[in-house]
Amino acid sequence: MTFSKHSILRTAALATVMIALPAFAQDAEPAAEAVVEAAAPVGEHTVFIFNSLLFLIGGFLVFWMAAGFAMLEAGLVRSKNVSMQLTKNVALFGIAAIMYYLVGYNLMYPLGSWSIGTDETGGYLGAFGVAVLEAVGVAPEATDDLSYASTGSDFFFQLMFCATTASIVSGTLAERIKLWPFLIFTIVLTAFLYPIQASWKWGGGFLDTQFGFLDFAGSTVVHSVGGWAALTGAIILGARKGKYEGGVHPMPGSNMPLATLGTFILWMGWFGFNGASQLAMGSVSDVADVSRIFANTNMGAAGGAVAALLLTQIIYKKVDITMVLNGALAGLVSITAEPLTPSLGAAILIGAVGGVIVVFAVPFLDKLKIDDVVGAIPVHLFAGIWGTIAVLFTNPDATLTGQIVPIVIVAIFMIVTSAIVWLILNAVMGLRCSPEEEQMGLDKAEIGVEAYPEFVR
Amino acid sequence: MTFSKHSILRTAALATVMIALPAFAQDAEPAAEAVVEAAAPVGEHTVFIFNSLLFLIGGFLVFWMAAGFAMLEAGLVRSKNVSMQLTKNVALFGIAAIMYYLVGYNLMYPLGSWSIGTDETGGYLGAFGVAVLEAVGVAPEATDDLSYASTGSDFFFQLMFCATTASIVSGTLAERIKLWPFLIFTIVLTAFLYPIQASWKWGGGFLDTQFGFLDFAGSTVVHSVGGWAALTGAIILGARKGKYEGGVHPMPGSNMPLATLGTFILWMGWFGFNGASQLAMGSVSDVADVSRIFANTNMGAAGGAVAALLLTQIIYKKVDITMVLNGALAGLVSITAEPLTPSLGAAILIGAVGGVIVVFAVPFLDKLKIDDVVGAIPVHLFAGIWGTIAVLFTNPDATLTGQIVPIVIVAIFMIVTSAIVWLILNAVMGLRCSPEEEQMGLDKAEIGVEAYPEFVR
Amino acid sequence: MTFSKHSILRTAALATVMIALPAFAQDAEPAAEAVVEAAAPVGEHTVFIFNSLLFLIGGFLVFWMAAGFAMLEAGLVRSKNVSMQLTKNVALFGIAAIMYYLVGYNLMYPLGSWSIGTDETGGYLGAFGVAVLEAVGVAPEATDDLSYASTGSDFFFQLMFCATTASIVSGTLAERIKLWPFLIFTIVLTAFLYPIQASWKWGGGFLDTQFGFLDFAGSTVVHSVGGWAALTGAIILGARKGKYEGGVHPMPGSNMPLATLGTFILWMGWFGFNGASQLAMGSVSDVADVSRIFANTNMGAAGGAVAALLLTQIIYKKVDITMVLNGALAGLVSITAEPLTPSLGAAILIGAVGGVIVVFAVPFLDKLKIDDVVGAIPVHLFAGIWGTIAVLFTNPDATLTGQIVPIVIVAIFMIVTSAIVWLILNAVMGLRCSPEEEQMGLDKAEIGVEAYPEFVR
Repeated sequence: MTFSKHSILRTAALATVMIALPAFAQDAEPAAEAVVEAAAPVGEHTVFIFNSLLFLIGGFLVFWMAAGFAMLEAGLVRSKNVSMQLTKNVALFGIAAIMYYLVGYNLMYPLGSWSIGTDETGGYLGAFGVAVLEAVGVAPEATDDLSYASTGSDFFFQLMFCATTASIVSGTLAERIKLWPFLIFTIVLTAFLYPIQASWKWGGGFLDTQFGFLDFAGSTVVHSVGGWAALTGAIILGARKGKYEGGVHPMPGSNMPLATLGTFILWMGWFGFNGASQLAMGSVSDVADVSRIFANTNMGAAGGAVAALLLTQIIYKKVDITMVLNGALAGLVSITAEPLTPSLGAAILIGAVGGVIVVFAVPFLDKLKIDDVVGAIPVHLFAGIWGTIAVLFTNPDATLTGQIVPIVIVAIFMIVTSAIVWLILNAVMGLRCSPEEEQMGLDKAEIGVEAYPEFVR
Repeated sequence: MTFSKHSILRTAALATVMIALPAFAQDAEPAAEAVVEAAAPVGEHTVFIFNSLLFLIGGFLVFWMAAGFAMLEAGLVRSKNVSMQLTKNVALFGIAAIMYYLVGYNLMYPLGSWSIGTDETGGYLGAFGVAVLEAVGVAPEATDDLSYASTGSDFFFQLMFCATTASIVSGTLAERIKLWPFLIFTIVLTAFLYPIQASWKWGGGFLDTQFGFLDFAGSTVVHSVGGWAALTGAIILGARKGKYEGGVHPMPGSNMPLATLGTFILWMGWFGFNGASQLAMGSVSDVADVSRIFANTNMGAAGGAVAALLLTQIIYKKVDITMVLNGALAGLVSITAEPLTPSLGAAILIGAVGGVIVVFAVPFLDKLKIDDVVGAIPVHLFAGIWGTIAVLFTNPDATLTGQIVPIVIVAIFMIVTSAIVWLILNAVMGLRCSPEEEQMGLDKAEIGVEAYPEFVR
Repeated sequence: MTFSKHSILRTAALATVMIALPAFAQDAEPAAEAVVEAAAPVGEHTVFIFNSLLFLIGGFLVFWMAAGFAMLEAGLVRSKNVSMQLTKNVALFGIAAIMYYLVGYNLMYPLGSWSIGTDETGGYLGAFGVAVLEAVGVAPEATDDLSYASTGSDFFFQLMFCATTASIVSGTLAERIKLWPFLIFTIVLTAFLYPIQASWKWGGGFLDTQFGFLDFAGSTVVHSVGGWAALTGAIILGARKGKYEGGVHPMPGSNMPLATLGTFILWMGWFGFNGASQLAMGSVSDVADVSRIFANTNMGAAGGAVAALLLTQIIYKKVDITMVLNGALAGLVSITAEPLTPSLGAAILIGAVGGVIVVFAVPFLDKLKIDDVVGAIPVHLFAGIWGTIAVLFTNPDATLTGQIVPIVIVAIFMIVTSAIVWLILNAVMGLRCSPEEEQMGLDKAEIGVEAYPEFVR
């Protein structure tokens, strides 16, 4: 049986239904199960279909975020590095899909006897082996878990989260990292680093069972994890040439409409990211919760965008569109750890704090001479930490220890492991292109296709 | 209880089901309601889930239209004003979300004792107070209206319509309006102007109850309303410098692929805009109606695009891509007042008239020296009026008075109120940037981030 | 009754349900049918809603592919032909919608007495006459086929396939074909050529009934068909001026972010293209199959992208982003003939072969001096043939003859008919613009609107 994210929440929801309908549940004869279920408010087959459909819709929306990252990053780098950035984003998604299939999916979820941990203790690691879906035309009795959803839809949805984590890393390191070391890091990240730490929470592992860690759709498990890998890489890689020589030199992005498009795409995809993380919509209660999540996710983004809008106007006397975009994204990351329990107003505030974080964190990183080309560290790491802490304000089940300790544990794990991988790659093949290549642009150096051959002199 | 759009239609649909199933409806004991309902063709919980899902899917599709407007407008303005246009589109969406939450949603729908009007008389205004969703994990008995959909999904969907109205205004006034007066107008529009007039139709108000006004998804309630605000603003603001000095000077948009992308995005989003305005898909009849609406909406767009294609070829001996794009959009606006009753062929014709309107109205506005940068007035206002009148040709329930008088009432309301707001803003802070800023471009003047720093000399 | 794609598969699925539930099926009294159905795992009305919803979601996703083709092609042509390419893509979609409504839909599906073939023999052609949807608010008893889906949703979905076929043609012929002959070809293709051959498989025609041809979502029926029309056109039209004079001269595309965006859009849309071709999701078995298809479709794309990534690095020592994009698309085309039966691993391999085909076929076509501007022939025709053959490796129902002979029949039909149409158009009005126009660019010659008036010198 596949363990699923938020299995506790889901079980609670099911329990509610069972309590509400004791007669039906108890009268059921095994052979006549289908009949009795149909007499329940929503038949179990229908629930299975709804849940699977939620994953499919959520999955294609989160897939769409891969395009969002590609456009955002292509818009925020200089034109000489745009083809490289596009290549990295397409390639990392392809690699993530393959590695999550080969290793990650089963590593993330305990699978009975093959698993290193067990269902009872809560697994630290799942199993080794490729992902296997249900048979074609599977009979209801033969599904892994008829009360959940099809394995195919679950795999499809979970894969997209793994790929999102990899997408986060790519922007920070732009304009100076070589293609292949980045892609090899992506292999390690999507096959091992992401799935291992994700199993600690979503695979029924110790962060879930021992700490009661609450991270609904992954402010920490996805966004901070990508952010830590990006931060570690940025420090090891160093800043772009000229960025911090004699002050901070802005290197403006080449295409603001692309960056804006990328932000809108990510905003749209986030409805699937957070909404389908409810993992169920086969009851009145579940679909109402999914609805709350959609509405709150939108409010988080709105809060982040408007906060950055106002703050840049106040501080700089001009509105910085890149800050507004990153403000919206930080709002989305902030609401991701708990998009269900906040009121709409609380969601706006949680998102707004994310927007404020971005406005202050971008120059702060520049002071530290950490060169984050697209602002992914403020957006995904800092706002991810904030969002994970903010759960405390709206979800009574959250405890200070239960939120803070897992943040620290995941941080240590990701900093240590990703530093090791980056350093090995640096030693073996070099992470960074030559100064001449950096000057020339990576499109000519490594891709051989200019992004805009007719526009730029 | 929340009033919903087309409550009459919905009630009729429910009535049909009740008539078809008298035995089940009458035998129902309160305590055994769930059982009996499950014996109906589709259980009431399942209906609730389907309806809520329709709003969620429709909602993210209409959200996507915000990106469509941003891309369309960014493509149709000159490059020196692109970052400004992008900023306005992201900011207006964030503001619309917050204001609709704070004021608009409850103002639009009557809410029992708080409302100024009442359920019986049909409210003129709803209530004051922020929007509140169902509790987390709400029990079926505790939902506002189990026969409808979750409040969260309804709020999410309705919010997107409010934001769309604001998006319409932004393109017309491009290249010379200052950021902040535009955003303050957006606050008033999304908190008060849109919700008040929308309540007259969709909140069970007098246009609905006394005139039998038919405007399925808002050719008038959304598109013309945005169009009137844009027209009023364009007249008060005046034309761009040089536009009409010694003849009409074309000021070509900077990026046709963006404008085309924006059009395709809007076209896609419109399936949600019109389709989910059916407000129900929990019966064979309802889902077949939603399907009709999808198909007709597509046909309206196709008719508008092809009409503009042929007409510009005939008139100008060349096909004007901007006219084809606006033709498609005008076709969509035209079919929005009644996307259900037309046959596919009628939908093509209704859309085609919209396309024809655009081809003639764009030069007509230029003759009047009304400077509409992106063509939003022909597309949203003129085609919106046409679409509202066209209901008469396919829906036997429509009456001439019932369509024309509400068009005039909404026109007067929007012209008067938006003129007042524009004039106050003009007096207090000035609507228009200085001639030097207009010459330099608003990206440098107010945003401080150029859209394409490397492409333009 | 409308015949539907994969009717055999669907019938089989239904049969499975019937076998599983003999008691319910046999006890049913006509008058009490609704009650008994509700006792089945999923009530028949609910199944109808799920199936229709699948088509609506699939339909808007495949609609979105039209935007994908537009962006891909706009990115891969030179900037002087971009507005033309955009115009063609919007116009062909509008034309396809209208022609499929007027002629194509009914030509594709047998319709009782009007049809030339009959239901018993398997029709070669459907009927003449415009498409007609169910009445507004149709009663369940009055639907065409309550066990299938609403006609509106079916029409909406099928229309998108017809339009996709037309989109495929447009890219290959870019930069030298005149607008109107292309659009007239589109009329013939979408009204007659596509629907006629599609009826042979999906209208219950002889490829289906006599050959047992398996082509789940159309590697042959859609992609190769578009590819043959493109190839025939490219040969008759000849190469762009200068392309093959004294060697092969690269003519780099003007905008890689657009090409990448187009690829991501197509990838996203393909979940609907393949997934909704299951034609049903109203049972556990069907939704699990749809889930398999989503996951496999994604894996096919990933395999194609990564194969092209590795192969271009090995062969050219640089990664060619255009090859990676076309590799992903070829992977998608390859998995389209059978996205259900492969394991995830097999899907990766099938897609990877598609990616390899692209890397070798692009220079191969150049050797033959066949000028395919965007690589549509390798992607849609060659990978389409490969995908159709690859069904043999994962679906035991496929036979060598049953796959190969239909490929050849469709090839002959499309080559002959499209050559005739292209040659007539060439004789009557000329396919090709003048050398001066080609030099100047078609945007100035035929559209009168430059795509990027401020960027290009």
